[in-house]
Amino acid sequence: MSERPHPGLFVTIEGGDGSGKSTQAALLEQWLTDEGYTVVRTREPGGTEVGLLLREIVLHHRGDIPPRAEALLYAADRAQHVATLVRPALQRGDIVLQDRYIDSSVAYQGAGRTLGGDEIRALSDWATDGLAPDITLLLDLDEETARARMGATERRFDRLEAEKQDFHRRVRGAFLAIADNEPDRVAVIDAAEPVELVAETIAARIRPLLP
Amino acid sequence: MSERPHPGLFVTIEGGDGSGKSTQAALLEQWLTDEGYTVVRTREPGGTEVGLLLREIVLHHRGDIPPRAEALLYAADRAQHVATLVRPALQRGDIVLQDRYIDSSVAYQGAGRTLGGDEIRALSDWATDGLAPDITLLLDLDEETARARMGATERRFDRLEAEKQDFHRRVRGAFLAIADNEPDRVAVIDAAEPVELVAETIAARIRPLLP
Repeated sequence: MSERPHPGLFVTIEGGDGSGKSTQAALLEQWLTDEGYTVVRTREPGGTEVGLLLREIVLHHRGDIPPRAEALLYAADRAQHVATLVRPALQRGDIVLQDRYIDSSVAYQGAGRTLGGDEIRALSDWATDGLAPDITLLLDLDEETARARMGATERRFDRLEAEKQDFHRRVRGAFLAIADNEPDRVAVIDAAEPVELVAETIAARIRPLLP
Repeated sequence: MSERPHPGLFVTIEGGDGSGKSTQAALLEQWLTDEGYTVVRTREPGGTEVGLLLREIVLHHRGDIPPRAEALLYAADRAQHVATLVRPALQRGDIVLQDRYIDSSVAYQGAGRTLGGDEIRALSDWATDGLAPDITLLLDLDEETARARMGATERRFDRLEAEKQDFHRRVRGAFLAIADNEPDRVAVIDAAEPVELVAETIAARIRPLLP
């Protein structure tokens, strides 16, 4: 295992909508807290006060938001979040459990919106001054199952969730391509398995990394 | 004169706070309107609905906004503004009179915040897909005169205006360096001259470019 640049542990959870990220983050937080760790659970967009304002704009603005503006809003949220919340927590030695990070931008803005994944990653690397996750849990789920799960709940679809099937297929492909490129960082988790089994798989991947 | 990429004319007005940008923009708009042109007068940050929200965050948020987050917020505002307002107006053949553009970001975020002007310019070039002004009017004024002018009015100083003298000195130096590098695009105007004289100087620079 390579040396980490901070005493804490930076865990990101990635995947399409409906893949169970929130449920698994909650279970992982509970387990780590029970084990005595200080856990900071957060998300992008919207992990800070400024980020909540940006999240509202990106997800719920009624007018047109062109792709480059959208990508820059996510990058601004990320810069604010990393500098004011994530990096200080990692320096303190906390475990940061984060719902969505750079891989989501590469998948959604890069592949989904066809802006180009490399440009989007470069933007985020600049925004965060190069902060990479220690491990990324990619909850992988085929698009039909994800959509069926979301349809089963009553919540309103936001702008991104309402995008066409083809968009979501490109996003999933982009996530899996990232995992192929960085197998040491990204653990692909089969999110179609029962919740408890997914949680056990995740715990097995996290355990060797605990501070 | 080189061919322009659009039938309209893109005029940006740059300079420190207190240099008289708003007054000169108003006089220039009046003259061009009297001459029968369709003028779109706008500004950054805040020229669109989304931009107004971002302007509020950047200029008046009470918490800390780290430099990279600030630069990305300006870039997001710019991407939104150019794609939804400026570029369509230039394609229609209108004259766009814009208070602040990329040079302000280079001067304020690049030199003022010492993030590096080249990185900031690259960010804005990406945000705007490379839209450059046809002419930039740089209203140049020494920092003491600018500060005295602002102090003479009753308005509250915002976050940037409240920065230290040294910051403003670096900003002015950055603006003048841009003008040195791009003399064909940037016209340096002595903003210490009387208002009417400044307006005449500006009109003389704009007249040969009119569609």
